[in-house]
Amino acid sequence: MDIRTELDQLIRDIPDFPRKGIVFKDITPVLSNSEMCLAVVAEIKNHFASVKVDAIAAIEARGFIMGGMIAHEMNIPFIPVRKAGKLPYEKIEQKYDLEYGTAIVEMHKDAIEKGWNVLIHDDLLATGGTAEAAGKMIQRLGGKVAGFSFMVNLSFLLGEDRLRKAFGTDTHYLISY
Amino acid sequence: MDIRTELDQLIRDIPDFPRKGIVFKDITPVLSNSEMCLAVVAEIKNHFASVKVDAIAAIEARGFIMGGMIAHEMNIPFIPVRKAGKLPYEKIEQKYDLEYGTAIVEMHKDAIEKGWNVLIHDDLLATGGTAEAAGKMIQRLGGKVAGFSFMVNLSFLLGEDRLRKAFGTDTHYLISY
Repeated sequence: MDIRTELDQLIRDIPDFPRKGIVFKDITPVLSNSEMCLAVVAEIKNHFASVKVDAIAAIEARGFIMGGMIAHEMNIPFIPVRKAGKLPYEKIEQKYDLEYGTAIVEMHKDAIEKGWNVLIHDDLLATGGTAEAAGKMIQRLGGKVAGFSFMVNLSFLLGEDRLRKAFGTDTHYLISY
Repeated sequence: MDIRTELDQLIRDIPDFPRKGIVFKDITPVLSNSEMCLAVVAEIKNHFASVKVDAIAAIEARGFIMGGMIAHEMNIPFIPVRKAGKLPYEKIEQKYDLEYGTAIVEMHKDAIEKGWNVLIHDDLLATGGTAEAAGKMIQRLGGKVAGFSFMVNLSFLLGEDRLRKAFGTDTHYLISY
């Protein structure tokens, strides 16, 4: 079976989560299927095979899971992008807009070396606000955005356009809704 | 160099984090060292080689990172153990005591199959409260605790004794303070 068809059968729609009117894409059945995880991670590695990738920056918390798998598969450093107040060492922060209000993500100041090409990973691309904030922090730390990797893209939220305009790099996902 | 010596050189002490009087063990320099991550994950796999492990349950959020790597290395399902309100599907919860008050962790009801032997992973073992709560949920879902895996053990908090008394299984860690 095609990897997209299999993913579509595994990903579960949860109506009204985390709040009324939102249909949440639950990826936990994918994580429970180790052969599918191996296939997804292998496809991500293969997709970025022609790009120099020095590290992967993964976004808290769901992005940490497959981000860890990708770092392991590609044998590259794992860099956490965390919500405000979670990282213990010297850090920089980046604000971004939510539907109502703003949020903050943070990275350690010594998270990457200057000139590194960093792949940014999260489980799901919605509006792209968090991913764009992660990309901006990587640039502020002297790195380059090598591209973006997601398992799922919610295409109607136009996150791919936003990331292309902001960074001009490739956005890869396994399945789009 | 011995893996423990190298880990000890990488792990960073952060005084007064997350609050005054606590010395936080920052593992992010380990995650930035991909060869070290490969070595740690290989040692964990090797340690549990004689035990039947059907899945790994990893604890939010730092446990997700190396938990993902272990799931990938061992080719077994990844099961998230999350803080209250984060999991979208039908779930069970387990309360546990903190120094002041209580906390809750949750797992999906369909997270594991009956009879599965589940390895529980987190980055750091302190009092063992969260790990014990995860083990209880696995038992309530019809599974067995195959053992516990941590990168770091804070031995003066006696978490290892607590987990041995509660489950009688093996607790593995790479380095102890």
